[in-house]
This record gives sequence, C-alpha cells and structure tokens, in this order.
Amino acid sequence: MAVIQKKKGNFLEDFRVGQVFRHKVGKTVTEGLFNAFTEYDMTTNPLSKNRRYAERYGFRGLVAPPGLVMNVVFSQSVEDISENARANLEYINMRFGVPVYIGDTIEVTSTVLGIKPSTRDPDRGVVHVQTTGRNQHDEVVLTYERKVQVWKGTLDAAVQEATAQSVPAVACELRVPAYDAGRGYRELAHLTSADTYFEDFNAGDVIEHSRGRVITTEHVALTAMLDNTSQVHCNQFLIDQNPEKFIGGQLIVYGGIPFNLCLGLSCPDVSDNALGDVVYTSGRHTAPVFAGDTVFAATEIRAKRDWPERADLGIVCTVLRGHKFVRKDGTAEKVEIFYLERELAAKRRSHYC
Amino acid sequence: MAVIQKKKGNFLEDFRVGQVFRHKVGKTVTEGLFNAFTEYDMTTNPLSKNRRYAERYGFRGLVAPPGLVMNVVFSQSVEDISENARANLEYINMRFGVPVYIGDTIEVTSTVLGIKPSTRDPDRGVVHVQTTGRNQHDEVVLTYERKVQVWKGTLDAAVQEATAQSVPAVACELRVPAYDAGRGYRELAHLTSADTYFEDFNAGDVIEHSRGRVITTEHVALTAMLDNTSQVHCNQFLIDQNPEKFIGGQLIVYGGIPFNLCLGLSCPDVSDNALGDVVYTSGRHTAPVFAGDTVFAATEIRAKRDWPERADLGIVCTVLRGHKFVRKDGTAEKVEIFYLERELAAKRRSHYC
Amino acid sequence: MAVIQKKKGNFLEDFRVGQVFRHKVGKTVTEGLFNAFTEYDMTTNPLSKNRRYAERYGFRGLVAPPGLVMNVVFSQSVEDISENARANLEYINMRFGVPVYIGDTIEVTSTVLGIKPSTRDPDRGVVHVQTTGRNQHDEVVLTYERKVQVWKGTLDAAVQEATAQSVPAVACELRVPAYDAGRGYRELAHLTSADTYFEDFNAGDVIEHSRGRVITTEHVALTAMLDNTSQVHCNQFLIDQNPEKFIGGQLIVYGGIPFNLCLGLSCPDVSDNALGDVVYTSGRHTAPVFAGDTVFAATEIRAKRDWPERADLGIVCTVLRGHKFVRKDGTAEKVEIFYLERELAAKRRSHYC
Repeated sequence: MAVIQKKKGNFLEDFRVGQVFRHKVGKTVTEGLFNAFTEYDMTTNPLSKNRRYAERYGFRGLVAPPGLVMNVVFSQSVEDISENARANLEYINMRFGVPVYIGDTIEVTSTVLGIKPSTRDPDRGVVHVQTTGRNQHDEVVLTYERKVQVWKGTLDAAVQEATAQSVPAVACELRVPAYDAGRGYRELAHLTSADTYFEDFNAGDVIEHSRGRVITTEHVALTAMLDNTSQVHCNQFLIDQNPEKFIGGQLIVYGGIPFNLCLGLSCPDVSDNALGDVVYTSGRHTAPVFAGDTVFAATEIRAKRDWPERADLGIVCTVLRGHKFVRKDGTAEKVEIFYLERELAAKRRSHYC
Repeated sequence: MAVIQKKKGNFLEDFRVGQVFRHKVGKTVTEGLFNAFTEYDMTTNPLSKNRRYAERYGFRGLVAPPGLVMNVVFSQSVEDISENARANLEYINMRFGVPVYIGDTIEVTSTVLGIKPSTRDPDRGVVHVQTTGRNQHDEVVLTYERKVQVWKGTLDAAVQEATAQSVPAVACELRVPAYDAGRGYRELAHLTSADTYFEDFNAGDVIEHSRGRVITTEHVALTAMLDNTSQVHCNQFLIDQNPEKFIGGQLIVYGGIPFNLCLGLSCPDVSDNALGDVVYTSGRHTAPVFAGDTVFAATEIRAKRDWPERADLGIVCTVLRGHKFVRKDGTAEKVEIFYLERELAAKRRSHYC
Repeated sequence: MAVIQKKKGNFLEDFRVGQVFRHKVGKTVTEGLFNAFTEYDMTTNPLSKNRRYAERYGFRGLVAPPGLVMNVVFSQSVEDISENARANLEYINMRFGVPVYIGDTIEVTSTVLGIKPSTRDPDRGVVHVQTTGRNQHDEVVLTYERKVQVWKGTLDAAVQEATAQSVPAVACELRVPAYDAGRGYRELAHLTSADTYFEDFNAGDVIEHSRGRVITTEHVALTAMLDNTSQVHCNQFLIDQNPEKFIGGQLIVYGGIPFNLCLGLSCPDVSDNALGDVVYTSGRHTAPVFAGDTVFAATEIRAKRDWPERADLGIVCTVLRGHKFVRKDGTAEKVEIFYLERELAAKRRSHYC
C-alpha cells in the first residue's frame, strides 16, 4: 500500500519560459453562474439584466458583464499558474473580445512569458504569463498578462530565470453589434441613467460611487463556483494551523470578487450606458479583503477619445479604485484595495437618445 | 477636477403627486434567480418546482411563486421610491395578473399618489405610490400601492403635500389556464397535500405552520440579486458609523425576504394546492428581522367564497402572520414580524381528485 | 375557532412494512440548482462543467454529478421518511441509472422494508426503506436502501416491528453513451487529469486529496434548495430551546452536503476521467459536521475489474472517506466524518488517449 499525495499546481521551479498550458476542465456559463455573479455586484447595465434591452441592441441575449468574463477565464488558470501563489501582483493589457452569452463554453490557455526569482526572499519569485480564453467557436473572449508571486516547492531547487523576447500577439478587440438607427433605441432609453453617455464625462472628474456592500462568508461559495482552487480562500484549517504565514491570518477573499464588485458599484454612474469594456491596461489589488469588509468604489475620468470605426460610441479612459475602511484607535481609516486602469465603450447621447 | 457624488434615489421633497417613474434596468428572470428565490423559502407548490405538474395544468413551464413576482417588481422600484426610505409602512391591494415564467423580462413603473410630511418629525414624511410590473408582452404581472416613510434630503426643503383624487385603474386579475377534465389531474394528485383543497378550509381556523428557518447573512446576497439597492441591507460600514440612527443598530433584513419566507413556510398547509395568489389586500412589516432570527408563520382562515367564473376553484381569504422569538431575561418572547391579508385561488377536491 | 398544528412527517409508529410512499412535489433540475450544487463541491469532471466535452462523449448536455442526483432523490423522501429522524444510519446499494440533465424532472417513491424499535431507548427505532427516483420518462436515475433512526411520536404507541421478506428488484444500472472511436476523444484529453485513467489505479493505494473546504452557514440555503425540510438543519430557535437534545447543540449540517463535498474533493485525483459512478455499496456519516468545519477527503483503491460489455471502461472499487479536524487541548485531532464504498466507471487510457 502506498499513501499518495498528488501535487496540485506548480511551484516556481516548475515553470519554463515558453511553456504553454492548456488548462483543464473548461466552463459552460449556466444561468446559475450568470445570475450569481451578475447579481452579486449590484451592476445596473441592462445588457446583463434585461433580455429585451440586450436584443434590441443586437446582442443574442443577456451579455455576461466584464467581471464575470474576467473571473471565468482567470479561474480556469489558477490550478496551473497560481494554486501555489502568495499574491497576485498585476493584471496587464486585459482586452475583451466577443461577448460571452449564457450557454457558452469557455476554455483557457496560458503561455509563460517570464520567471524571476526574488532577490530578497529565496522561497519565492514572480511568474509572468499571458492567459487567453476562447468560446466554443474558438473566438477570443478575453486575453491578458498577469504577474504573480509564486512559492518555491523546494528551497534549493534551481529556477530557470528568463524572459520571453516578445509577448505573443493575440487578436482580440471588443466586438459590439453594428449601430442601426432603425432599431428604436430611444424607446428603451429610460432603462439607463440619463447622465452616463459619452458626452457626460469630463477628464479630471472623480466620481465617488455612493453605494457600498459588505462581503460575507458567501465569498467561499462564489470562489468555488468559479473553480478557483486556491486554498487560501476556502481552507480554514490550513489558515488556523499557521496563521502567521497567511496575509491577515484569516481566509483572504479571492481578488476577483472585489474586482467584480468594484465594477458593479461603479456601474450606475459610469457604465450602464457602456456597450462593453475595451481594455484594462493595468490593475492590481493594493490591500487584502476579508469577510466583514464593506467595499466602496470611485472612478476618475482620465481622458476621452473617439472610436474611429464607431461614430455612435466613444472611449472613456478611467481609473477605477476600490476601498474599504479599517478601524484604528476609534477612527475609520480609508484603505485602497483595488486599482484598475479601465477603458469603456460608451454610447453617445447623439445617437441613442 | 471636480469630485462628484451623484445623488441616488429621491428624498421627500423630490416627489410630486402625479409623477410617473419608469424604473431603470428591468429584469429577466433567469433560472438562477428563479432557483434562488423559489428554493429559498421552502415553498412546496409543485407549480414552481415540478415542470411536469405545471405543464399538466396548462402552464407554459415552471411558474414563479408569488413571493418572487412581488420581490422582482418591488425591487425595481427601490432606487426611485425608497432608496432613501426609513421604513416601508404598508402594501395595499397587491393584485397578481398573468403568470411569470423563466425567461420573462419584467419592467416596472410607479405613479405618485400622495405626499404627506410628518407632523411630529420634520426630517421625514410618507410617500404613497402605485407600482405596476409588466412582462415583455406588456401584460401586467403585478400591481399594488404602497406607503413608505422617506427621509428629507434637506431639513428645510419645501414638501408639496398633496393626495391624488383617485387611484389610477390598472386592469389586473389572476390568470390561470382553463380547467380541462381530460387532462388527468388526478394522476398527479399525490404530488400535493391531501388536505389543502378548498373544501378543507374552515373560517376561523388558525393553522400554525410547523417549520421555521433561520435567516443567515445570505440575506445580503439575496437582496443584491433582486437589485434592491437600499443601503441599510448591505452597507455594514454605514451602520457602524452611526448605529443609533438605524433600527436595531445592525444591517436590517430587506422585508421582501421574510415576506417570501412566510409565504413558503405556509405553503404545505395552505397553498400547495392553490393555482395562484389573487390579492394581498393589506400587508405590513410589524417588526424588523436580523441575521440570526428564525422565522415562523401562521395562517388564519377568515372566509371562503366562490370564484364565479371558475367552478373548479374557490377563493380562500386568509391572514398570514410571521413571527420570531426574542430572548429577554432568559425567556423567549414571541414577536410578530409580518402581517398579510391574503386571498388564494385554491383547487376544489371535487374537480381535481 | 380551532388552532391547528398539522403533523409533518411520520414517527416510528406510523410506518408499516410494505407501505409505499409516492413523495410529494417532485423537482425539476434548473440551471440554478445545477450550478449551486455542481460548483459547491469543487468537482472537476468536465462532464458536469463543460458542455462541449459532455456532448463529445455523446451525452445530451451537461451531466448532473452523482452528488446532485443523490441529493435530489434523497431530499424528496425526507418529509415522509426522516423529517422526524434523529440520525441517518446507513446508505445501502445505491445504484445510478440514466444520466440526469438540466431540465429533467425527478419524482421519488419509497417502500418500507423494515421497522425495528430500539431495545435500549424506548423513544426511537430504525426504519429501513428502499427509495427510487425516476425522471419524466419514468426511467430510474437512482435507487438505494437506507436505514434511519426515527423518533417515536408517542412514547407508548405500538410499533409494528417487521422485516420484508425480500428487497423489491429495481432495474437500475449506469447508462453511458456507446464508445465511438470516430468521436475524437483525444482532442479533448487535455481537459482532464493525465493520471486518473483506469490503468493508473493500483489496489491498496490511498490517495490523500490535497484540498479542503470550509462549510459556512451557506449550508442552510443549500439544504432548503434541496427541499430537505428536516428542522435540525435550519431551525435555530428549535436548537436553542433545548440544545442538549440535539447532536452538538447547534444546527447540524445536512449529511448530503459533506457527501457531495467529499465526492468533489476526490474528483481531480480519482473521478475526473470517470463517465459515472456505478454503485455505493455502503455509506454512512460517522461524525456530525457543523458550520466552520473544514472538510477533507481521501480515497482508498480497493480493487479493479473489467466491465464486460464495455472494453473502453473499467470499474474501480474504492472507499471514499471524509474527515475534519477538531481542536482539543491545543492540538488538532483528525475525525472521520464520512465513509462510502464507491465504484466508478473509469475511462481506459488505451481507448481515450
């Protein structure tokens, strides 16, 4: 008889630059998953909530919001890339492609772009990957790079430090149904805010979104629902055995959850008249989130620009920030938890009202 | 650079009698939402659980239970009507129309019927509205009035006290597929209780429903799932900043949750042989509910009457009450939390067994 | 006026050997229910997650995992059989039949096989039943026996002790689409583990599954979602009134939840290349589980054998054990919570890779 403990995930020394992972399992977006994530975050874009509206705009049905697309693709990569990670450092150039609909099946691949051991801490290092999700028609729904800090499995194992010469080109740009003045968009204009059209945004403005939402222990179930297998989000016993090893000494909320929540909290002020998110140039989690924290968000308008092929839409360049409050000595100190450079494709009032 | 805090919802001084709100967003009933709410409350009516049964009765598929219909319609009205409310005072003449099915899209409007500032408390007053939900075919699924106590935004703002001369007529009555003796209802009679037919109810009886169910922090997610944006249900930080201002000093459970739960707890004794709820003449939340409370329910049979056009069905007039227990000095004191005058359309044993 | 407290469920003295229950309500498997349970347990078999994979194998769509099938069928029987139970003692000869798909409607019957009062405790005894679930085409999806310890309703009521002469034969064996070498299974081989084919298992091996998952208060909602009405899982007030009467003095997690979770935790090491579970010869819950417990699992390989009619599949005979850790005097003691003799139909590498 042999007692077998199978390895799950990879450690720093297991990665090779150029290595390609075709991640296991894949995920069909059921109405259950769609509902859980779309409703979780208090998003108010009717594209994801009102089928009549989505179809009027030429979409095939309800459209998965960007936070759901990001979470599904990201989570498929966790076992291979970050099951043994200490922290997710950065999202880079996260671009959206074709819309994701209920019933779509998403499969994901990742390519290793760089490996760099820590010069200070011999037990860890940074892995740089490019991850791409595709639907059942092999169309790209999302592609991005990320940098993640990964533990070593064996302290003295050799690490193959290297950097890819270039980032593989992945064709991926936001696909939105064509504008058609005959569709009667105006008839449904009351379903969205009157002040979130392209014309309404001014570079330099900071919009403090009024709503907040507490994260409860529901985060454990939401994380499992995404197939994210990282143990720091769900294995209470692991934490209790050695709380000093883990950030905050308690179960940490999977970053995709505040990511999704900040997008939703910003929606009624910023994106309920968007037809899609275009790109997240850079993003990072700047502090951990735990059950019991109430999450808030704010959006800074950085710039606006035309979308050359689409006179009906314009690009709004923003920074989305999330924050929470931590009590210290009787006062509540504001702590930033999330930073995302985000570009949206917003409807122009001139064409839709 | 401007820092912008957009107003959400209306304050007492913002309302005008006669004003009509076409509420934003709208909501498609996915299988995820349907499952979460139908199963939440322990309902046992096979119309909402067993497609074979629902189709045998001539429905197009699973039928949304009344608590789900009420919650979807109500929640769409929250941002405009009660995001800045202190308390929901009364539901009046809540009538059900065509059945709601999975895949239906519900959009909602409200008309302001009355505005009355408090004579005692200068910071609040009562708004009286009529709210109506319609499906994608413009058929009414629910209409009702409610009175809600709303905060003023500015203490000395002028309030336009007024009352509408009449309540607009909204055609809405319960629609149930025709009776057809050839359908073989008897073959499925074992799927419902043997003692909940019209003939079984006696005016004056009080049925104490045996089951109870604790409400956990799940209420935060359920409330978000309904698009109910009222902050007192989900913004823990808001409460912690000023607990004295909020009822109970903690997150209060959104009233639609115990409303739904009481309907479900009563179901095996009262409504698993109903083909629909007809009208809630009057209803109110008589005490707040918090996470950790176990909710119970009882039904008083007030009267019975024929439904002239439907020999196979009869109307049962009831009062549904919810209660919980509060510990005081070592004993558990029963506290009523919910009161609903409810009329059901119950199958007659003579036609279905 | 009469105050009525309707009896729910049966007590020991209410059962008769040979009695057949056609359980109420029935259950259509919506995408919401499917998602909640399939994702709850961290299962990784693409048959239940990836429609492209399931259809490639000849299934009609996503396949309900065995834990969901078991939970749906079991829960339909609770009101009649075990609403007044103290403990579930044993599952016997639980066999799977045709696959369950989203949209299927499951109805359930039970036959009483034995009644045996306790010789030591006059307030309880054991009921032995056979329970069978069928879909809307009257095809068997699951059949099993179970023994359950049930309270008496009245201490001195007469109990009809008896044992059926034989267990009724219920035709039920795992149905899996035919093997077809032209289907291109190999193209999707990367979606499952490379080391969980029939050839990979060795009798005597014990595989300790690396992942654990904490159970939160979510168990209350999951249990309601299954229509399991047993009050010890959801009625906090009942427990608080008389904690000594209830195991652990707190809400006990419904056994189907760790059952499901242990199956899922074992999946990446044991069953992600299975096309179905064949039979659970014997199973039992060996210790109670409470909110806050982290559940782990291990699988012992007992034996392997051919499946005569299916050269592409082999039967792997295992024991699946669940455990948790209980802190005592500063150390964490391992406690077994679940035991299941489980036979799987595993793909052979020779045919699928």
